[in-house]
Amino acid sequence: MKSAVPSDLESYLAQNDARIHDELFEFLRIPSVSARSEHNADTARAAEWLRQSLEKAGMTARIHPTSGHPIVVGEWRGAPGAPTALVYGHYDVQPAEPLDLWTSPPFEPTVRDGKIYGRGSVDDKGQLFLHVKALEAHLATRKTLPLNIVLIAEGEEEVGSANLERFISENEELLKADVAVISDSAMFAPGQPSILSSLRGLAYFQIDVQGPICDLHSGSYGGAVVNPAMALARILSTMHDENGHIAIDGFYDKVRVWEPRILEQMRKLPFDEEDFRKDIGVSKLGGEKGYSVLEQLWARPTCEVNGLFSGYTDEGAKTVLPAKAMAKVSCRLVPDQDPAEIEKLLDAHLMRVAPEGVTVTVTHLHGGRPWRAELDGPVYDAARRALKSAFERDAVIVGEGGSIPVVGDFERILGTPVLLVGFGLPGENAHAPDEWISEENFRKGMSAMAVLWDEYGRNGKP
Amino acid sequence: MKSAVPSDLESYLAQNDARIHDELFEFLRIPSVSARSEHNADTARAAEWLRQSLEKAGMTARIHPTSGHPIVVGEWRGAPGAPTALVYGHYDVQPAEPLDLWTSPPFEPTVRDGKIYGRGSVDDKGQLFLHVKALEAHLATRKTLPLNIVLIAEGEEEVGSANLERFISENEELLKADVAVISDSAMFAPGQPSILSSLRGLAYFQIDVQGPICDLHSGSYGGAVVNPAMALARILSTMHDENGHIAIDGFYDKVRVWEPRILEQMRKLPFDEEDFRKDIGVSKLGGEKGYSVLEQLWARPTCEVNGLFSGYTDEGAKTVLPAKAMAKVSCRLVPDQDPAEIEKLLDAHLMRVAPEGVTVTVTHLHGGRPWRAELDGPVYDAARRALKSAFERDAVIVGEGGSIPVVGDFERILGTPVLLVGFGLPGENAHAPDEWISEENFRKGMSAMAVLWDEYGRNGKP
Repeated sequence: MKSAVPSDLESYLAQNDARIHDELFEFLRIPSVSARSEHNADTARAAEWLRQSLEKAGMTARIHPTSGHPIVVGEWRGAPGAPTALVYGHYDVQPAEPLDLWTSPPFEPTVRDGKIYGRGSVDDKGQLFLHVKALEAHLATRKTLPLNIVLIAEGEEEVGSANLERFISENEELLKADVAVISDSAMFAPGQPSILSSLRGLAYFQIDVQGPICDLHSGSYGGAVVNPAMALARILSTMHDENGHIAIDGFYDKVRVWEPRILEQMRKLPFDEEDFRKDIGVSKLGGEKGYSVLEQLWARPTCEVNGLFSGYTDEGAKTVLPAKAMAKVSCRLVPDQDPAEIEKLLDAHLMRVAPEGVTVTVTHLHGGRPWRAELDGPVYDAARRALKSAFERDAVIVGEGGSIPVVGDFERILGTPVLLVGFGLPGENAHAPDEWISEENFRKGMSAMAVLWDEYGRNGKP
Repeated sequence: MKSAVPSDLESYLAQNDARIHDELFEFLRIPSVSARSEHNADTARAAEWLRQSLEKAGMTARIHPTSGHPIVVGEWRGAPGAPTALVYGHYDVQPAEPLDLWTSPPFEPTVRDGKIYGRGSVDDKGQLFLHVKALEAHLATRKTLPLNIVLIAEGEEEVGSANLERFISENEELLKADVAVISDSAMFAPGQPSILSSLRGLAYFQIDVQGPICDLHSGSYGGAVVNPAMALARILSTMHDENGHIAIDGFYDKVRVWEPRILEQMRKLPFDEEDFRKDIGVSKLGGEKGYSVLEQLWARPTCEVNGLFSGYTDEGAKTVLPAKAMAKVSCRLVPDQDPAEIEKLLDAHLMRVAPEGVTVTVTHLHGGRPWRAELDGPVYDAARRALKSAFERDAVIVGEGGSIPVVGDFERILGTPVLLVGFGLPGENAHAPDEWISEENFRKGMSAMAVLWDEYGRNGKP
């Protein structure tokens, strides 16, 4: 397996490097935070910016309104008879809070030590944009592509993609493709190109505990009233047993054990648990006993608190018995767990452990199915060659603890196999302050994706 | 025991009722929130307003700076040979949040249905101010008082009175008195004057749980890291057993059982647990099993969560594994529990239950000793007569679940017995939105306190 990036594409990307960076920074400056309604205009602006960028790259592009944030679709169909590839990304970003923990402002992209810092730099604007530029490299230098391309970018990935599944179902003709390619994940290590074989799914919910009708004086009432915050703590403490196993009845029933060949490959990966521990700055790692860290992250489900709120949380002391308490909780799921089934198990568990004297309400905020790749066929071969040509190293097969729910949608609705090839890196702070993407990975990612179309166009089944 | 409010005092208070109300409203409009440094200027303004009000009432008054908020002291010493009474109150107020739950703005006093709504109306500006006006009634109508008076008002009661104990110790000569009178509590029921026989103490602390150095993506890291919010929930769940008993080793060792005569009197009070439950709007009451509600509130200690915070708590879903979690927790204490001892027991408990993989820090924010009254002697007799004259009903002896730490300080440092006679009412929302004081109680409270000085001046030991 020997390959190199064709010189015309290479030259184009090199010569336009400064402009491409400027354009990326423009994209990153738009605070398209899908979770916050006050940013709705920004999110719409990001969609329009992307549409224009696709047109400039040589494609036709349209904005499709939804009941939430719009979907942008770009097309180039100048290769009749050749295969069609569907590229997916998202132009919305996570909220940037807590703002005081950012070294430079989240929406003012800044380069430090070869890293582009900014909200959305790696998740997913940077990785979406490198696809746009890889396509532009073909269309600008050769005025053609070796296959047909449909690019779809949504604006609701960070809030559960409420409108995407329906859009895919209603636009099967538009989106039908031989393969889908998504870059919204990380490489295993710097310089080590990686192909993703698994994703975890998600069941995200909110627990609201209502006690008295209003906040009470903790002296005048304390001792006779069930404290909603204490009740919430007791509820949350029932979610795991003492070995870190999730203590919800039936939770593990559908968990599929990984095939030995993937487990074996995983165990060979150069992963140092001690380095991982030091990087995140904890005295000891945790989680489910009896599993390695990579197994915990890729092959095992979780149940995590994402947020807690109750009563008085500002400076000083307020002697209040709070009227209510809230927790945001989410479970990462693995094949073959089903988010809808897990929601039911959670509801049953919470109703069982809810104490008397408070009212416990569960709201399911969103869910996504877990996924496992096939890893065989022309697109995987093409990806291995493309990654090798850009990174000069063989790709490894890795898992991923995060969720990309659209992967399951593409396979189920369109019958399209999915290739996940991402250019983030460990420590990229995807949902945290100081999110970044490596400049080198951004550049090599463009090259690799430009080569992918050559390789797949040549070898893919029409 | 037959008495009535002397007609000169009665007339003065009636004729000046509108002006007195206007002045009270002026006082309530000053947002003297001691817990918030952004209100420091307001808190200082409230002290100066009070000083001027004391001067207008015919006393001499001075502001004593402290390292925190100032202490205001008013004096009238025109009755040599007669006893001296010390009146205590506080001009600072609790934070008003959550603001959206107030029917009218917290710092714009508003009368509805015979209640004056506003932050500080009952706790404690309204009750402090009725003392000022009772003294004014004497000095305006008779140009004298039947005893010597020292009035002390602090601005840090709601944040633990950090400077009060020292001020008392350093000003024994100024504050020395035969009796201290405090109105910072509630009557048992409308129309039912009450003398307080007990107060609970307080040990207020904050638990901070630190996990990873920064917020992490719950997909990429979830499953291998101890979640600080989940750890906090597990810690809090160890504070009680399943019967609502506090499960901290040694916590109950110093709890004194109430004398039979007080318990018997308490059991005769017309208290309907079902009404209490309905008033606070819960389906079932809680707390320590085996005790009546009044015992739970007055005679038993508690451990309550006052606030919780971790991770993402805004609109929507953010898949974050939080770096840290925080709880504000406080224990109400009963005689003879000692806050300093309880702090040590808490520290030991928290260190014992703190899980590996996170760092647990405990900060003790403030503490106060519990208290039990003597209930005998000339000031109690005078109080019974004064309350009867204003309310036309015999006073009852009650307990109180809240804390007034200064009571213990007066007894310990000055050797002065304390009379607690308050004019709040059940449901007054002292630390919650829509705090109020009854207009009737405000008026009768002024009358009763004006009579108290006649009765005690006549019968108190010099």
